[in-house]
Amino acid sequence: MTSPASTTRVLTGITTSGTPHLGNYVGAIRPAVAASHAAGVESFYFLADYHALIKVQEPARVQRSTLEIAATWLACGLEPDKVWFYRQSDIPEIPELTWLLTCVAGKGILNRAHAYKAAVDKNRADGEDDDAGITAGLFMYPVLMAADILIFNANKVPVGRDQIQHIEMARDFGQRFNHLFGKDYFTLPEVVIEENVATLPGLDGRKMSKSYDNTIPLFAPRNELKKLIASIVTDSRAPGEAKDADGSHVFQLYQAFASADETAAMRQAFADGIGWGDAKQQLFERIDAEVAPLREKYEALMARPAEIEAILRDGAQRLRARYATPFVAELRHAVGLRDLSQQAVEEKKGGGKAALPQFKQYRDKDGRFYFKLVDAEGNVLVQSNGFDSPKDAGGLIAVLKQAEQADAMETPEIVLQVPVDEVLAALAALRESEA
Amino acid sequence: MTSPASTTRVLTGITTSGTPHLGNYVGAIRPAVAASHAAGVESFYFLADYHALIKVQEPARVQRSTLEIAATWLACGLEPDKVWFYRQSDIPEIPELTWLLTCVAGKGILNRAHAYKAAVDKNRADGEDDDAGITAGLFMYPVLMAADILIFNANKVPVGRDQIQHIEMARDFGQRFNHLFGKDYFTLPEVVIEENVATLPGLDGRKMSKSYDNTIPLFAPRNELKKLIASIVTDSRAPGEAKDADGSHVFQLYQAFASADETAAMRQAFADGIGWGDAKQQLFERIDAEVAPLREKYEALMARPAEIEAILRDGAQRLRARYATPFVAELRHAVGLRDLSQQAVEEKKGGGKAALPQFKQYRDKDGRFYFKLVDAEGNVLVQSNGFDSPKDAGGLIAVLKQAEQADAMETPEIVLQVPVDEVLAALAALRESEA
Repeated sequence: MTSPASTTRVLTGITTSGTPHLGNYVGAIRPAVAASHAAGVESFYFLADYHALIKVQEPARVQRSTLEIAATWLACGLEPDKVWFYRQSDIPEIPELTWLLTCVAGKGILNRAHAYKAAVDKNRADGEDDDAGITAGLFMYPVLMAADILIFNANKVPVGRDQIQHIEMARDFGQRFNHLFGKDYFTLPEVVIEENVATLPGLDGRKMSKSYDNTIPLFAPRNELKKLIASIVTDSRAPGEAKDADGSHVFQLYQAFASADETAAMRQAFADGIGWGDAKQQLFERIDAEVAPLREKYEALMARPAEIEAILRDGAQRLRARYATPFVAELRHAVGLRDLSQQAVEEKKGGGKAALPQFKQYRDKDGRFYFKLVDAEGNVLVQSNGFDSPKDAGGLIAVLKQAEQADAMETPEIVLQVPVDEVLAALAALRESEA
Repeated sequence: MTSPASTTRVLTGITTSGTPHLGNYVGAIRPAVAASHAAGVESFYFLADYHALIKVQEPARVQRSTLEIAATWLACGLEPDKVWFYRQSDIPEIPELTWLLTCVAGKGILNRAHAYKAAVDKNRADGEDDDAGITAGLFMYPVLMAADILIFNANKVPVGRDQIQHIEMARDFGQRFNHLFGKDYFTLPEVVIEENVATLPGLDGRKMSKSYDNTIPLFAPRNELKKLIASIVTDSRAPGEAKDADGSHVFQLYQAFASADETAAMRQAFADGIGWGDAKQQLFERIDAEVAPLREKYEALMARPAEIEAILRDGAQRLRARYATPFVAELRHAVGLRDLSQQAVEEKKGGGKAALPQFKQYRDKDGRFYFKLVDAEGNVLVQSNGFDSPKDAGGLIAVLKQAEQADAMETPEIVLQVPVDEVLAALAALRESEA
């Protein structure tokens, strides 16, 4: 999971408010899992449970959906040791960044968000007050989404057309922050429009969607899957009558799962007048052939929710240590939420050698000798306890200067003020400069 | 720092965007520190640095102000081992709770916040768009403030009249959360209006305030303090002419620091025609007599910023361990951000009949008869209006019990609290159990 400069970071969020269905699988999960194996890409997939809270006030449903979606992505082949797979609410730096961005986000921009405007339009059509029943959550959703993206400096965010505006907002907030605080803290994300997203027809022929209540759950049990497929609406042509493949929902569903050859054969069967019952049976068998092995994995995973919990927590923990915690520490410093003891250092700071971390030795009021390791910006990375002589202090500094491993830091004489990785990185930079 | 049930929690926030002046001292700091010694009170004082970010985009100023304000309160006698003294941004649970509250806060309520409306009015007067230059931070400020208060279940929040509305909003958001998630998670805070807040005149005679640039810094060095006092605007009466004490800013300032006897003596001196130079000299000496020992402590503290940093971190750490972390864990569970491994436990819990939804009939305070349909977890699915007799209520229950279609729900006598599908599912489960 290294990220050389040439790596592109791609970020995908999944709101945890429903049960994955075949439309999700074909349109989002299957292509995303395939994309996760691409070279030169660092992929971020997260369960957007803070987003779910905007719409869903049923705790059991949020919990259930989170479990189902996590199990689904894992069953479908997402490899949590090769991509970042995490739950949004396990990263406390996300709501923190949300507040920092809230302070720079223009309210006027949020007024123009499509989802909010649609809710206002509906209220107007119903003769209600503009904001009747609208929560601040719906209104602020684009700021949370910007935090999701910007916290990992994602380069690309694949979304549907309806989400383009949100990515533009994330760019706007990020740029405004960069401008206000004088540095390119944030990478501005690029939108990747998924033009060719396969959409599936649902049971009633409209697009398969939770909101139409016409879905086929991806991991419905076999007999349930069969029953649901049997209930797909068709025309009333009898067996033996030629049928229009392209106008048929049964055919469209089949095509989403079949190879080119299989599809051609089915097209012929339609022309030859296959009966709806037979066509649906073949559709069922084709879908089940692809889904059955995944369903088995899914059911095994669902039976071990503690394992899923552990996978998600592990992902978030590693991701925080690697990116979120140090980055938000930098952003806090940028806006002025700073270690007060660095006041003097900040103000005296000035150019030249200051760009390197350095050890500073000093004698404190208690008459004892101390040192600290501070970085270029004056942040204290390591603070020593008091020594009887400057020589003792200097001795430990010499040892630390050579430290390349975390265990070299394990002495009661010093207290790390930042994660050990950062201390090691600073020491490495120091060695390099002195080499 | 125990908190028996009889203890009242009082919470005070100080925005870290300026340097404390004499007006802050007399109007806020001195009375608050005195109040912190009261019995039966658990006091919370916090440096509201997330709030500061709404207005201040100068990081060094935020940092400097945080240090100065912390040192000031400590120098003025706040005892961090007897009260909770902390920095808002050291409590990551606060931005997290802010998001949870954002999801329940009505946007329409936020539209009516005074500070936001004043900014809109100003834009209109200037011929600008309503929201020109207004950030989401200004708009969302009441939600952050609600999180500040609710996270510690503060009972009382002493504020000026201009802040009453914010406390009402905190009550509203807290109540809405309690209602939605079916339990009194939050104590609803009471506003304590500080009717008798002493306001001091500034150098120009208007109320001493940062925004008028007419302040006397509380810990200005002695010679600076003297110079500033000498510059207070007076009338041009010569020494020997009788002067109006009550109309004099010099007298008002003197009164804020003097005992009753001293005040009476000064009033006499004014009547006797004390010269402005002498009066200002006495004012300077009286203020300096009170401030000098505090200034000495302040300067000592300012010279040891690491100590202040440590005090603040320690306060936040203890406060998180004691209240914020376990409470937000409870709130996360309430909204559905849950350990997935507890899924099975949740669902199997209780078993048997307890797992079923049920109709509950009751008579309310208005004397009328009601019922509600609640699920196994106590969530209200359906709420009825009032009926004249329990028989009428029971009649509708009998009808609903048979309902299999959404249209059976379309009666003005009931209000669905969840989507109709869930109500139908609950009714089906009930029928099945009774079959």
